[in-house]
Amino acid sequence: MKILLTNDDGIFAEGICALYEALYEEHEVYIVAPEAERSAVGHAITIHYPLRVNKVKRGRHFWGYAVSGTPADCVKLAIYELIGPVDLVISGINRGANVGINVIYSGTVSAATEAKMLGYPSFAVSVDGFEDIDFCFAANFMADVIQKIDEFQITKPFCLNINFPNVNPCCIKGIKVVRQSTAPLKEFFDRRIDLHGKVYYWQGAEEHTESSPDTDVIALKQGYITITPIMFDLTNYARLSSINKLAKLLDQII
Amino acid sequence: MKILLTNDDGIFAEGICALYEALYEEHEVYIVAPEAERSAVGHAITIHYPLRVNKVKRGRHFWGYAVSGTPADCVKLAIYELIGPVDLVISGINRGANVGINVIYSGTVSAATEAKMLGYPSFAVSVDGFEDIDFCFAANFMADVIQKIDEFQITKPFCLNINFPNVNPCCIKGIKVVRQSTAPLKEFFDRRIDLHGKVYYWQGAEEHTESSPDTDVIALKQGYITITPIMFDLTNYARLSSINKLAKLLDQII
Repeated sequence: MKILLTNDDGIFAEGICALYEALYEEHEVYIVAPEAERSAVGHAITIHYPLRVNKVKRGRHFWGYAVSGTPADCVKLAIYELIGPVDLVISGINRGANVGINVIYSGTVSAATEAKMLGYPSFAVSVDGFEDIDFCFAANFMADVIQKIDEFQITKPFCLNINFPNVNPCCIKGIKVVRQSTAPLKEFFDRRIDLHGKVYYWQGAEEHTESSPDTDVIALKQGYITITPIMFDLTNYARLSSINKLAKLLDQII
Repeated sequence: MKILLTNDDGIFAEGICALYEALYEEHEVYIVAPEAERSAVGHAITIHYPLRVNKVKRGRHFWGYAVSGTPADCVKLAIYELIGPVDLVISGINRGANVGINVIYSGTVSAATEAKMLGYPSFAVSVDGFEDIDFCFAANFMADVIQKIDEFQITKPFCLNINFPNVNPCCIKGIKVVRQSTAPLKEFFDRRIDLHGKVYYWQGAEEHTESSPDTDVIALKQGYITITPIMFDLTNYARLSSINKLAKLLDQII
């Protein structure tokens, strides 16, 4: 299989290396990833600045293409210019979970979404931890999934957001297919004063306020590997008919 | 009504000025917007750099807060730190339409989406043009909508993406409530050589490939004002059950 790997942690991040190690013997694997960390850039693309691409080595060997843009830029540039069509795109493995409200801010998930928008099946893969992360289990799990992907007969293109708990593999409780939690985060801004007496703010967020067990947030917290199918059509279909009534009233304005 | 205005064209853009002029006599209007253009940043937020806020004047009068971050940052910072709770958020008026696939890249729409995520009703407003834009008609139309908003009895919070054709108002054919087009764009990268002999790329896109009249892309092109309700839950519910079968097979792996 011809596989494109990308991420938002940057081309030399441990997670993308682990994926490569688990896949390169069985597949034709290419890496096109941001030259440095691009977390929380969501589905940003670079249209007001030119993009630069550098071939980079890991040790003595060609490793991949480092791009000056965002994860979504990497996918487009890989497909249209650097690699051509692929069989599959995998974004990750990300340091830190991508669940709940945070999915919309995630560069990792946006790269996978972009792949689906271009017509390619994709996975976004994350581990719920920032220290002492075991990327190997997630990487080998993904290799197994890919080996069996055709057996599963999933309609293509798909975009699956997969999150792994950062626990000893024997403690993983199983796999749950769950919806994205939409419960709000507890957010805050930390107001500080710089050395010149001027104000600046750090943006932060605490725990998700979710409690429903059929969500990614809670299932992951309970020790399950979570899978959420992701779409890019943002139309709120449930609201179309009620807004239609509004439009009829508005028609009287113009 | 207490109204927050933001955009992705920057705090001094013509479109946000037109909105302010149409609203300030009847409402308590606040402006918190990016200090410079932030187009195509999607739902990016700034977590790895501090945010700066400057009070700026237009002529001799206080105009608003210029933020060093993205449109989504502006909404969060306004609500949590600068302005407090509001009755409504309006993002725009944007130079250029925000329809079809492009909605996911749009800073304008993402600001409105962010407002809904925080529990506030919101509009994203754009005009389909880059030259000789008549912002007044769209601004006055929005003032009329807001004046009547309670009559419409829309369930709150809502997030409505509104696009205006850039034509003489008497040529506008009416208002259509439509879904977001998901047809692909014709995209390309323009490969160039800089003055030092190094390659760089400009990212570009041509027309939408859409043809269906029930979409924002086509209705706008036909001369209608388009309204699309937007959501931020990215779960592909239609796929949940089929992916569930996959999870059962995967359960055998672990």
